[in-house]
This record gives sequence, structure tokens and C-alpha cells, in this order.
Amino acid sequence: MARLVMKFGGTSVADLDRIRNVAAHVKREVDAGHQVAVVVSAMAGKTNELVALCRGADVLHDAREYDAIVASGEQVTSGLLAIVLQSIGIDARSWQGWQIAIRTDGAHGAARIAEIDGSKLIERLEIGQVAVVAGFQGIAPDNRISTLGRGGSDTSAVALAAAVKADRCDIYTDVDGVYTTDPRIVPKARRLDKVSFEEMLEMASLGSKVLQVRSVELAMVHGVRTFVRSSFEDPAAPRIMPNGDPYGTLICNEDEIVEQQVVTGIAYSKDEAQISLRRVSDKPGVAAAVFGPLAEANINVDMIVQNISSDGAFTDITFTVPMADYEKAVKVVEAGRPGYDFEALESATDVCKVSVIGMGMRSHAGVAAQAFKALAEKGINIRAITTSEIKISVLIDAAYTELAVRTLHSVYELDKS
Amino acid sequence: MARLVMKFGGTSVADLDRIRNVAAHVKREVDAGHQVAVVVSAMAGKTNELVALCRGADVLHDAREYDAIVASGEQVTSGLLAIVLQSIGIDARSWQGWQIAIRTDGAHGAARIAEIDGSKLIERLEIGQVAVVAGFQGIAPDNRISTLGRGGSDTSAVALAAAVKADRCDIYTDVDGVYTTDPRIVPKARRLDKVSFEEMLEMASLGSKVLQVRSVELAMVHGVRTFVRSSFEDPAAPRIMPNGDPYGTLICNEDEIVEQQVVTGIAYSKDEAQISLRRVSDKPGVAAAVFGPLAEANINVDMIVQNISSDGAFTDITFTVPMADYEKAVKVVEAGRPGYDFEALESATDVCKVSVIGMGMRSHAGVAAQAFKALAEKGINIRAITTSEIKISVLIDAAYTELAVRTLHSVYELDKS
Repeated sequence: MARLVMKFGGTSVADLDRIRNVAAHVKREVDAGHQVAVVVSAMAGKTNELVALCRGADVLHDAREYDAIVASGEQVTSGLLAIVLQSIGIDARSWQGWQIAIRTDGAHGAARIAEIDGSKLIERLEIGQVAVVAGFQGIAPDNRISTLGRGGSDTSAVALAAAVKADRCDIYTDVDGVYTTDPRIVPKARRLDKVSFEEMLEMASLGSKVLQVRSVELAMVHGVRTFVRSSFEDPAAPRIMPNGDPYGTLICNEDEIVEQQVVTGIAYSKDEAQISLRRVSDKPGVAAAVFGPLAEANINVDMIVQNISSDGAFTDITFTVPMADYEKAVKVVEAGRPGYDFEALESATDVCKVSVIGMGMRSHAGVAAQAFKALAEKGINIRAITTSEIKISVLIDAAYTELAVRTLHSVYELDKS
Repeated sequence: MARLVMKFGGTSVADLDRIRNVAAHVKREVDAGHQVAVVVSAMAGKTNELVALCRGADVLHDAREYDAIVASGEQVTSGLLAIVLQSIGIDARSWQGWQIAIRTDGAHGAARIAEIDGSKLIERLEIGQVAVVAGFQGIAPDNRISTLGRGGSDTSAVALAAAVKADRCDIYTDVDGVYTTDPRIVPKARRLDKVSFEEMLEMASLGSKVLQVRSVELAMVHGVRTFVRSSFEDPAAPRIMPNGDPYGTLICNEDEIVEQQVVTGIAYSKDEAQISLRRVSDKPGVAAAVFGPLAEANINVDMIVQNISSDGAFTDITFTVPMADYEKAVKVVEAGRPGYDFEALESATDVCKVSVIGMGMRSHAGVAAQAFKALAEKGINIRAITTSEIKISVLIDAAYTELAVRTLHSVYELDKS
């Protein structure tokens, strides 16, 4: 007997037939004697529809009201799944964020979970009742519904798994695991049996859309063993791994991964815009002067590269921002000009960030050099480079994205099984 | 300065344009210095869509889950109206049933309001904030969302008006008031300036669909002055009555109505089926034996007529039930047969109940006789008759509905202004 959290996203609950499929997955686990809590998203397309209504009501809509409106999508799905489960003889009950309660901070529209009281749910789980929890939502300190931001249902699931001390958190999705890279670009991309939390964090934040970044952070902090698996498997008899784990990818602590690869995967993100300030007066505090106002404007600056100037008087600063914030960022930088000076602002929106990720990098020299050499051989120009302990990212022209990903995937021998 | 509750139904909030129209009505009252709480229904068609989802999930769906699902419709509208109000500079906030809280009994799917804590809302109203309340819903003793049954938003509005001690409850609808009868049948039907609670109760329960029965009961018990008025009036400059009241129909205590009419209106209901038991053994307790099981089966028996038998051994019992319960009722009656005996069960579904309503009947003799004579002159056969202090109802063949309504409307001089 284990205690499981199962999470199903929007496409897995897109209509009543798909919801019945979800119920069959739940039934399998209940029949196996497990205690089950299910976290569901809104039916596919529903959240977009509700967001469009909010925007139609007022482009600058109040975040509290947005939350009350948008959270209704998960409310409906949780109720429907509870009904379908009951119809196949499984005791089930839906739970909204405020009923549990899933307490969040007050950042309506993009709240963070502060605390989940697992006691009521544990009581129900222990008498064999399935808890169907509306994902993506909680209750803020002002006693109003809050939402966690898009994709927040993954985070709900992992946080819930931590709160009810679940043995496992299964994230059902439309793919059967985490791959070495995007299989649409590299058909030879392989499913990974295991990925460390740290690697997954880099992959998630770098554009691999399998899991939401925050959910991986939470899983890491609370040590929640998280499986990414497919909701399209036969619910009655899904494939399992030789060790008995679900067929998919286990995201876990590094020490659970026996054979560590040097490089685990290649990720990319086209949602980037590059801004370069040429010949900035190189005085102490100039970086703070540039990036402070961007932070205040809530613009998430990603890569930052500052070259030491040869004459000591000027420097070049290059950074990237999400495409959606590009125009705002340019305005903020121009507006800050009295505080610092630069000769020219150059920018590019047709860029892509490609990253090489792997825990093994820490102990293997030359991983970065390998990447730069391979890209150079293909004539791909690198606009900027940033690195961390377990990641190398390069910014390149978007046109070369596929070529770069394929090249790197092959260089690190990820094609081989 | 007055404190108002304004209620808008599904067609009044059918889309963002209609919601903007509602906001304009609210703005008018706010600009006039009034404190305003607004009660909204789900967008037209939304509740049906959600009910269909529940039925699709399982015909015998759990009422608790049904409530969680269906209540989401009003949740969305309340948020949208709050956003639109804010966009035109009005401080506004949405409120769900559980937030206020509107406490109901535990009859999920058709709950009754037990108690509303008006304190939080009054606080907000007093600082000039408009409260936008999701109608049709509350919270049950099990801490789960409950709904009041179809049309429950009228009840929400009146109950809220009582809880916050509002000076007036304005029910905005697609007609401009309560009419002497259905204007589609009698073009000369007149809008009534005032109707007593008791009369409105009879009209509401007899098929006039302007107001939900329970809302009228509540208004009567708490003495809430309730106006039925049109949401299609110019929001900036709606017509008003010579006495300054809104243009529409005031539902109020009898003593507010100076010139009492003998007959106020003619109502009809085609949603009736007639069941007659011929030659029932006339023993004490036979009525209880027939109607007990019907009550247990939750079938709402309306008209009941029992004739004294001439020989004392047999009697005829005739009663009506809602069309939806007709087949079930026949089965229940047949099944009860060992407990009582009858010669034949006759039934008719093509029948209509037409009613003459008026407080003045209590002090005027001959009102009933007038109706019978008029109908007889038109060759309309009366299948059954029931009367109360302020109402006479006759059951006739449905084909004669329009003729009967027109005839009675004219007999009591309701055509004359």
C-alpha cells in the first residue's frame, strides 16, 4: 500500500471521455490498494477562454477577480472527475483550494503556495476516499481565491504530495517522459529513466515544457519522488519498468541515479530577445543602474554578459529578456539613461538560447569546449555564452536552432541508447 | 442615500456587452449616492451547459459535486462584473456564497438559505464599495458549496436584501414588470404598479415566470420591498413612476396598496397532468393512502379534488402533478393498490390550469361564479376546481388555454386601464 498523488493536465481532462480515461487510471491504483489524491487542471482550452473573458472585461483587470474567474475551470473538472469516479464505484470527493486549505501568499494571479493543511485530506485518504483536488489554485491571506500562474497544477500536485506525505507524485502528461531533447527536432532523442532534480530544474526553466519550474523546485526541496508518465497508456495495464516503477521518467535525488551521464539533455528556448548596450561608461554600480529598474518593472532578465573593456573606460553589456517583455525592457533601459551612458542600444529578437545540461559536467572538464567547437564547425555564430555548474547556454540566431540542437545532441552521444 | 440590492438574471449578463450595460445601471445608483450590492446569475446558457456536463458524467450524479460544478457559472459572472465596474471607476469586489457566508441547509442541489451574515458586506457597503454577489449559491453545513435550485438568484437577492437591511431590492429582468396576464396571449394585458406579496406568491407559483416563488415568500416574511423592472431601460435615464419609484412593479405589503382590485391577474400553467381514480372504496384514510406514497416519492401534488360519493361506498379522487412527474406518479398510484382499491385510473396530460388571483376576493362574493359562467358561455369544460382565499383555479383542456385566459381577463375588466 502506498499513498499516491496523480496529476492530470488539461488535455488529459479535455472532455468527458478523457475524464473517464483518467478515472480508469485512478481505479487501477485504488484497486491495487493505494491511497489516492488526484490533482486536475481545467479542461483544455477552458483557461484561455476564461482569461479572454477577463481581458474583454478590462485589459487591466484586477488580479483578485481574475483569480475568482479563472479558478472556476479547475472547480468544474474536479467535480466532474469525482462524479465519474463515483459512477464506477469509487468513493471520491472534490476539493477546492479554499476547502483544504491550500494557503498561498497574496500575489494574486501568480501566487506561491505558503502552506497546505494536509490533515483533512489524510483523514479521507485513510478511509479509502479518493480526493480530487482542483489544481492551480489556493486561498490568499485576504480569504480570496488565488491562482498559481499558468501551469500551476504541477506545483499543486507536488506541494500536495509533500503535504500528505505521499510516496510518489505521478504527473500524467501527453508524453511518456523527459527526453534528452525535443523529439520533434531530433527523432533519435531518448527518454530518460531518471533525471536529477537539479537537471530537471534547468531543463524546465530552459523551455522543456514537460514540467513547471516551480513544481521541480518544490519537489527538490521536499524530496518528492516525481514521475512524468503518459496518460495515453492503457489504464488497466500500463507499461512498467523492470524495477517495478512506472514507465516514464523519475525525477529524484542525484544519489538515486547510479550511472551518471556527463550530459543529460539539450534544451532550447526561442522565447528570448537580446539587448546589447555598446560602450557603456564603465563605472562601479553601472550594472545595478541598468538592471535595478528592469527588476522593478518585473522583467525577468535571463542571460547577462558583461565584457571587461580593454581601455577600462567602457564596457559592453548584453542580456536577454522574454519576448513578451522586450519592448518594455527597451523603454526601461532608454529611460534610465541619465543614470548611465552608452553609445548604442542594439537588439535582436530572432534569437534562441540552446543549453547543454548535465550533473556530470561538474567533474568533467572540456564539456563547454566540445560544444563551442561543434557549433563552430557547423558555422553557427555564438552571440553570448553563460554557464552554471551543470549547464552551458549559448545564444544563437534562431534560424540555426534545429541544427544546433541536433549537433549538440550528437556530440554528447545522446543519440546512442 | 439608500441601500439597494440589484439583481440581474442570465439574459442580462449574457455577454460582456450586456455586463457593461449592467455596470451602467449600477453606476447610476452609485452616482446617486446609494450603497449597492449586486446579485448576478450565470451567463445565459451557462448553467444548462454545466448541468449537461454533470449529466454526461453520470445521470445519477452526486448533488454535492453538481453544486461545485454548477456554482462556477455565477462565480465567473460576479468576477467579470467586478472587473467591468472597476474599469469605469467604481470600487467593486466579487463575493462567493462561502465568502460572505450565505449559509444554507444541507439539501445540495435545492438548498434553502438558513442564514446570511451581512456584517462583512455592510462594512464594505459603508465605505462605498459595491459588492457583487454570486447568486444561486451558498455554503452547506458540510463546508461545501450548495446551490438553491434553478432560478435561485432571485432568492439570493431578496435574502441578501433582508440580511443587509436594504431599503429596496430591484429585480432586473427582460420584462418591465408584472402584468395582469401573459401579454403574448392578451395584448391588452396591463403592467401592475403594485402587487401584494400574497398575490405575487400565487402568480409566481402559477406559472408567471417573472419571479421565483421562494424569493416572494422570503420577501413577504422579511417585508423586503421588491421591484420588478427592466434591464433594457436606458441605464443613464430609466423611466420612473410619478411617485419617484422605479418604473416597474412593486411587490409589497397589502397595506401599501391603496386601491385594491378585486382581481389582480390571470395566471396559467400548462405544466400539469391530471390523474383521476374512479370509484375508490371510500374508507377513512384512503386519501392518506393515496397521497402518502406520492409525497414520499417527492412528487408535488397540486390540485386535489375529492367528491363525496352519493352512496357512501365509493368516491372519485382527482389530482394534478407536474408533467415531469406524471409517469412516475401513475406507477406510484398503481403500486399502492393493495392499500386501497379503485375501478379505473384515468389520466390526461393535455390539460392546463388557469387561475384568477386577487386579494379583493376575500371580501367580494360571486367572483368564482363569474368565472364559471364566463367559461361556460365559451363552451369551455371545467375538469376540476380548487380555490383558496385569494385564488380560484380551474383545470381545462389545454387547447382552450388562450381562450380561457382572454375571457377571464376581460370578465374582470383587467383590459381597462
